[in-house]
Amino acid sequence: MERRKFLKGAGVAGVAAAGAAASAFPTPAISQDMRELRMVTTWPKNFPGLGTGAQRLADRITAATDGRITVNLFAAGELVPPFESFDAVSEGTADLFHGAAYYWQGKSKGFNFFTAVPMGLTYTEMNAWLYHGGGHDLWVELGQEFNLMPFPAGSTGSQMGGWFRREVNSVEDFNGLKFRMPGAGGEVLRQLGAAVVNLPGGEIFPALQSGAIDATEWVGPWNDLAFGFHRVASYYYYPGFHEPGSTLECTFNLDVWNSFSESDQALVAACCAAENDIMMAEFNARNGDALNTLISEHGVNLRQFNQDIFDAFAAASADVLADMAAELGMVDRIYTSYTEFKEKAMAWTALSDQSYADMRRVATENL
Amino acid sequence: MERRKFLKGAGVAGVAAAGAAASAFPTPAISQDMRELRMVTTWPKNFPGLGTGAQRLADRITAATDGRITVNLFAAGELVPPFESFDAVSEGTADLFHGAAYYWQGKSKGFNFFTAVPMGLTYTEMNAWLYHGGGHDLWVELGQEFNLMPFPAGSTGSQMGGWFRREVNSVEDFNGLKFRMPGAGGEVLRQLGAAVVNLPGGEIFPALQSGAIDATEWVGPWNDLAFGFHRVASYYYYPGFHEPGSTLECTFNLDVWNSFSESDQALVAACCAAENDIMMAEFNARNGDALNTLISEHGVNLRQFNQDIFDAFAAASADVLADMAAELGMVDRIYTSYTEFKEKAMAWTALSDQSYADMRRVATENL
Repeated sequence: MERRKFLKGAGVAGVAAAGAAASAFPTPAISQDMRELRMVTTWPKNFPGLGTGAQRLADRITAATDGRITVNLFAAGELVPPFESFDAVSEGTADLFHGAAYYWQGKSKGFNFFTAVPMGLTYTEMNAWLYHGGGHDLWVELGQEFNLMPFPAGSTGSQMGGWFRREVNSVEDFNGLKFRMPGAGGEVLRQLGAAVVNLPGGEIFPALQSGAIDATEWVGPWNDLAFGFHRVASYYYYPGFHEPGSTLECTFNLDVWNSFSESDQALVAACCAAENDIMMAEFNARNGDALNTLISEHGVNLRQFNQDIFDAFAAASADVLADMAAELGMVDRIYTSYTEFKEKAMAWTALSDQSYADMRRVATENL
Repeated sequence: MERRKFLKGAGVAGVAAAGAAASAFPTPAISQDMRELRMVTTWPKNFPGLGTGAQRLADRITAATDGRITVNLFAAGELVPPFESFDAVSEGTADLFHGAAYYWQGKSKGFNFFTAVPMGLTYTEMNAWLYHGGGHDLWVELGQEFNLMPFPAGSTGSQMGGWFRREVNSVEDFNGLKFRMPGAGGEVLRQLGAAVVNLPGGEIFPALQSGAIDATEWVGPWNDLAFGFHRVASYYYYPGFHEPGSTLECTFNLDVWNSFSESDQALVAACCAAENDIMMAEFNARNGDALNTLISEHGVNLRQFNQDIFDAFAAASADVLADMAAELGMVDRIYTSYTEFKEKAMAWTALSDQSYADMRRVATENL
């Protein structure tokens, strides 16, 4: 709570009384207050899926309000550095940001659970927890400590396990493996003996090419194909244990949020939920296309982690998450809500999408 | 095209110049045209998930427009019978409906593909096809033939295989089985020799209790628990082959749609996409809870169809869908788009959610 910053009023920037200037033609839309909001993002300009999705959300809010609320997007570094988005919006330097909550784990470990945690919930399970399992309520409560109002606003879905210069056939193969993986997933690999490093996106390709690193995770086929990792690493592993369904966020300065009318709050929340749906759909569609290209045109060697390795990921992940929850208070409450929900969610997933997809695959082969 | 009905103007009902009456206090919101729209639905009042989701969507549009567009919901039978929703909105008797496109297969077999077809796409795959694989464009094109503008606006997700009074252990066990299943799934069962019947929701329970039918599908644990099927049938089978991810729709009279400003079109489309996301999340969350109750409190016997039976479902499903596509023109174009997309989608699903869920389950057991 000592980090709570109430800069009352400072957050409500960009309000302009455009009605006065246009008073010769006082149509209803123009006679209302027009305001411009600054959305900062943690993504490079037009980064596929993430940057383009944030832009689509900004444009949707602008269009749906007929410009009454015009959202101007600033890509990473244009207004503030990407990882200062949280503080910038908390303090009112910007009005909202699009990013990923786990970037803010330095503020509270609890934020991890609102993007993705190792061996955690899938995309559909995350949505169920957030909207109807108490997850979003906890996120809002945590956000308020930082003068923020968060919404789920996109997802990458399940991420791939990563690109490897050599095969990994046992848990021992991770010992000393130089692996680029940020966040809690990196902690898990460290427990298995990997030499975990973090590198910004632009430095990964040369590091993998030179052998400075042995392996890297990135996102999935769509983003990975664009980066060209298949040219410098032969093996493409699945499934990723580290980000099984990464929710993105659109988060408002709380004073800006509170300055919206109830009607505009409903409108903006609808726009965020729409982007949550549409971005995930885009990742799935484009990943399917890109996977096809990677296999048929580039002859990528797909490899599935064996179950021994995945069991080791799971055991280390349980330790890493329990360590997070040792930071009591909000974090423990979030961890408890999440893990209790996961047990029920896994039971339903097993009977629904999972068993269907498994039996459909075999049945299709047997046709 | 001969069924096309352009009742220009008739669809634009419910427009009221509320601004005049309120002119003593000409605030911007009130000075704009207020209009009331009639949403009919194919669902009983407050039917869990479907009826409540339609109501939530109606309320969201009303709230996000501050009542400029007030959507009044009429449950099945309140304004028109449920299966006349399509004609009522096409002709302008109502302004929009919430329902499921496969109810309109009598108008065009193509509509089946926009809800669910046997052995078809899951929820996440459907969204990928609709938003980013050309599916919604085809749906809009087909809708225009009937003076309609459709949007995806909810999903039940993967449905259960159904309630059975006795076990089914072979394809032969379906021979003569009296099974309640509507639509294309029913056609598939008929090919396996089942005596397929359709019954309205309210007649299923007594029919199953008396033995007039041997088995029925309904939706999933949430809805099925409320119906109490576990009291009259011992075996609960999964996964359902017949509706692996049923998209619901919010569909507007095309003249009403065209009467909206571009801004209101963006707003309404966002509200529909938001409901698409939020309803699916609710089904997943409530199904998880209800499954838990069915197993721990009611001792339901869960059974997985064996692969032989699923293979027979798949073979018959392929025949039924190919028969649909024999109705050339739009139907064949939709079928081709859908089946081509399915092949890529299945490959990506296998590497992402499916392999992750499979390995997570084993790893969790091994913890």
